[in-house]
Amino acid sequence: MAVIESEELSYFATYVSIVILKMVVLSPLTGYFRHQGNAFSNPEDMVSLKEKDRKPIFNDPMVERVRRCHLNDLENIVPFFALGLLYALTSGASTTTIVWHYRFFVVARLFHTIAYIGALPQPSRGLGFLVGLVVNVSMAVQILMYNANF
Amino acid sequence: MAVIESEELSYFATYVSIVILKMVVLSPLTGYFRHQGNAFSNPEDMVSLKEKDRKPIFNDPMVERVRRCHLNDLENIVPFFALGLLYALTSGASTTTIVWHYRFFVVARLFHTIAYIGALPQPSRGLGFLVGLVVNVSMAVQILMYNANF
Amino acid sequence: MAVIESEELSYFATYVSIVILKMVVLSPLTGYFRHQGNAFSNPEDMVSLKEKDRKPIFNDPMVERVRRCHLNDLENIVPFFALGLLYALTSGASTTTIVWHYRFFVVARLFHTIAYIGALPQPSRGLGFLVGLVVNVSMAVQILMYNANF
Repeated sequence: MAVIESEELSYFATYVSIVILKMVVLSPLTGYFRHQGNAFSNPEDMVSLKEKDRKPIFNDPMVERVRRCHLNDLENIVPFFALGLLYALTSGASTTTIVWHYRFFVVARLFHTIAYIGALPQPSRGLGFLVGLVVNVSMAVQILMYNANF
Repeated sequence: MAVIESEELSYFATYVSIVILKMVVLSPLTGYFRHQGNAFSNPEDMVSLKEKDRKPIFNDPMVERVRRCHLNDLENIVPFFALGLLYALTSGASTTTIVWHYRFFVVARLFHTIAYIGALPQPSRGLGFLVGLVVNVSMAVQILMYNANF
Repeated sequence: MAVIESEELSYFATYVSIVILKMVVLSPLTGYFRHQGNAFSNPEDMVSLKEKDRKPIFNDPMVERVRRCHLNDLENIVPFFALGLLYALTSGASTTTIVWHYRFFVVARLFHTIAYIGALPQPSRGLGFLVGLVVNVSMAVQILMYNANF
């Protein structure tokens, strides 16, 4: 029933759905902290506030923390999608190697989010970030070496 | 002539091109408002300004509004690309179901941009955002359930 | 051994790996400048600093420059991934046309990064940005015209 029948792609679809679901949930989480702290950036979002409180706030600690976490996700999970897809479709790696790249990445980024939102002591967040980065670089290098079609 | 012959992928290619075209146009729009408000962030962009005006400006309301809209697009349209592609290639959904997911998403995000740039009263922007988010979550859950290859 | 055997996809995998590698390297570069300028945004990152220096800093010129470059990459390289993939898989363009789109984009974005980080005089950075944008719009329009499946 699927257009492409591929075990690797099926693994990829599973892991990437998890990590993207995790990422998109940060949007409503930002919204939650905006309401908690009455910290809105757009005038049209402030109509429920008292007249004197209607000014944009860009320095609410929790709102900005979630936003930084979200941006870091974009900077890492989006490359993972691009590289992970090409790694499944066009690389010489074995299925086992491919799947372990995915597993390490997903666990590392789930841990990164917990460490970021929970403000855990370093190097916990840094470690989550680093493992994700290493997986991305590893996949990129392997795709490059396998294809090398300039 | 296409490498993959698939009706679902052809629908996907159409809708994703529209919504990504819409997104990339926000870059020159930011540039337009930067020139309108003389609000530049890089010293090398200010050579046409008088000496005394050459300082970075990070709080021009329209520039920042377009930038927030652009970031919100990245946070939602990029997941749509990832999930929409996998939804077309590897899910048990019917073509009709797939296409209606795409249609709702594209209309919702076009509306979101109009509401954001035009500063329409809430909940218009929030509604556009919410519909897009629901489409993304719905596709992610269906991909996960169909593949479930851990 | 690859799931999809396609010359276009192999070219795409090569070029997109280069440009995404370039993009993800900006994360550690931001980290480098954060340490150089003691400019951290999270309290948990400041334990090595003296008590009196432990405040978030959001205006370090080099940190903010790299971050703007990184965001501009996301706004342009991510659309390139989406459009470039569909351009390879589902468009009527010849392999030569496809590959030259990729080449122009990759060179333009490498140049954009050098111009941004090095603060080269305009219009160097603007030119790199513009060429990348034109490639993206050109691919989007061709994909739309080839598929046009609404």
